[in-house]
Amino acid sequence: MLTNRDEILMRRVLKLAQKGQGKVHTNPVVGAVIADRDGNVISEGYHSYFGGPHAEVAAIEAGKNGDIHGSTLYVNLEPCCFQGKTPPCTIAIINAGIKRVVAATADPDPRVKGKGFDVLKNAGIKVEVGVLVEKARYLNRGYFSSRQRGRAWCAVKVALSMDGKMAAADGQSKWITGLEARKLAHSMRADHDGILVGGGTVRQDDPELTVRNVSGSNPVRVIISPHYGIPKESKLAQTTKTVKTILVTFESVDAPVDDIAGIELLKLPDRGDGTIDPKELLESLLEFGVQSLLIEGGSGVLSSFMQADVIDEISVMVAPSVIGQGLSPFNGFIPESWEERPKFEVSMVKRYGKDVMIRFSR
Amino acid sequence: MLTNRDEILMRRVLKLAQKGQGKVHTNPVVGAVIADRDGNVISEGYHSYFGGPHAEVAAIEAGKNGDIHGSTLYVNLEPCCFQGKTPPCTIAIINAGIKRVVAATADPDPRVKGKGFDVLKNAGIKVEVGVLVEKARYLNRGYFSSRQRGRAWCAVKVALSMDGKMAAADGQSKWITGLEARKLAHSMRADHDGILVGGGTVRQDDPELTVRNVSGSNPVRVIISPHYGIPKESKLAQTTKTVKTILVTFESVDAPVDDIAGIELLKLPDRGDGTIDPKELLESLLEFGVQSLLIEGGSGVLSSFMQADVIDEISVMVAPSVIGQGLSPFNGFIPESWEERPKFEVSMVKRYGKDVMIRFSR
Repeated sequence: MLTNRDEILMRRVLKLAQKGQGKVHTNPVVGAVIADRDGNVISEGYHSYFGGPHAEVAAIEAGKNGDIHGSTLYVNLEPCCFQGKTPPCTIAIINAGIKRVVAATADPDPRVKGKGFDVLKNAGIKVEVGVLVEKARYLNRGYFSSRQRGRAWCAVKVALSMDGKMAAADGQSKWITGLEARKLAHSMRADHDGILVGGGTVRQDDPELTVRNVSGSNPVRVIISPHYGIPKESKLAQTTKTVKTILVTFESVDAPVDDIAGIELLKLPDRGDGTIDPKELLESLLEFGVQSLLIEGGSGVLSSFMQADVIDEISVMVAPSVIGQGLSPFNGFIPESWEERPKFEVSMVKRYGKDVMIRFSR
Repeated sequence: MLTNRDEILMRRVLKLAQKGQGKVHTNPVVGAVIADRDGNVISEGYHSYFGGPHAEVAAIEAGKNGDIHGSTLYVNLEPCCFQGKTPPCTIAIINAGIKRVVAATADPDPRVKGKGFDVLKNAGIKVEVGVLVEKARYLNRGYFSSRQRGRAWCAVKVALSMDGKMAAADGQSKWITGLEARKLAHSMRADHDGILVGGGTVRQDDPELTVRNVSGSNPVRVIISPHYGIPKESKLAQTTKTVKTILVTFESVDAPVDDIAGIELLKLPDRGDGTIDPKELLESLLEFGVQSLLIEGGSGVLSSFMQADVIDEISVMVAPSVIGQGLSPFNGFIPESWEERPKFEVSMVKRYGKDVMIRFSR
């Protein structure tokens, strides 16, 4: 039976797992805690670098000075049961004499997917699954999306005035939100594998699309610009050597940017109307190691992703100003009918300085 | 010297004052608490009906069984010092032997405005002003606005999708927000003396503009419709006998609705472009007893009030849906420049069911 103490320890597991963020890609982040029968922590561990020991093994190693025999192992993802870069965790768990395993969720990887739990159960270990499921899935949303849906998780971040405008009629948009909200925007970049904007945004704003003002690694920059490519003099074109940059263009087109050194091309079919299929892009991005994508604009890209019904999450930073006539984020999108307009759920509301962030999830 | 205890007792005063809301109009709501030297409450009172005893007198009356000699009186507004419908409160306070008066703010009414405090001080009473000033002013925002600025307080309430749209391109807007948010909208109506919409909203939505689903009295309905008036078959036209209804029209025009029984006319000058001056309307509404006005739309009215720079507060209900192409609340408004776009401050963020309310104040 699961207890409050189990949930408290699972929270600790999720904290530990987070330490691996940005370091274990494209593996999931995993944390592990070993506790005695009274729920006292004996040892902890997490998956800290790609190819390195898994969280379970790290915790078992750390616990060897104490007595982990008969203990409970807490982990956010089902322990693996196959030989990968490291031996199966299930063997290490059985050999350590652990008697109970509490996991948040099963591993969607077809090589595991319940088999890890079966191995443990067959060895007489009590297995309990389902503590903080939502949080654990969200922590590895890119991993789950890639394994379960064969496409990258798709998040949107947009800064709007209180009247829902992302720019004035004359195109001005710097800065709608304040310093704290912009800092959050940078840490959201670091939380995703890829960041996407359209060619129009590149030409209009000449963004760097890098992580600044917070620690974290740069996501892959993905630019949809099949018609005009990327200007050679843009900041993006000039930094392709330091930050991985992908230009999404048409299969049929000789990319107009093949003379920008270091840029990678992702060629997708023209749907016939001069656009690519957003879902196909999210699928193709997995080949580039992008399991989670953050879209930052502009309204053309946002509208086409909304129309394709592939957006998993939208973070709106609401600024306390009024823009009036101007550009709306999904202005190119028209739902089938009033009743069928896309509906989300508010998953988070938080103030950042003078602004308010509302996160909408499916 | 003011203490924490003073603040706690002033909170109680504000609670008491609120009990008079909707009952003392056009007087301010006032609460009063009498406490001994240790801060223990001896008695309480509030201004409970127009023409009835003031809060200070009510608290003194209620305290007569105990010993209020040497006590402190807490009140949210400066005690009056003139003979109105009731004798001056200052005399009652002095006669009761109260030794200290703690007030939130001075009374902006020119017949008082510091003179009440002077009378008390001259009688040897210690007077301290400035506890919970902002809250006290907000509670009587209509009263302060009418006395200090000679115009009604101007609030806006608007329900928007997460992408800032108040209606779809085809005009549909029922219902953007859920039940809890709509209930809040009704209680906001009850909190204001008047409610304003444009003639377009009347023709498009045929609203009742009454308080429903919550207790509270109906605000005066104000309709700006100088060109087309109000349709005879509208719900508004058919309920003028039960709810006070004002049609705002041009001075120069023979109102096209003079055959709707019970409707009152407010004639204002045409600014030359077929519109009235919002500030002039807010000033004129005082004559109708409207000290605080809630604007509910549509975008034409909202835009003209924003352009006139008279909006004191905007409550945006953000729904977790996406409308895409559609109507923005301030679409007819263009700020002078990007830097001069109207800026507010977030004064409240609260979830109502599935929606989020953000209140922006000046």
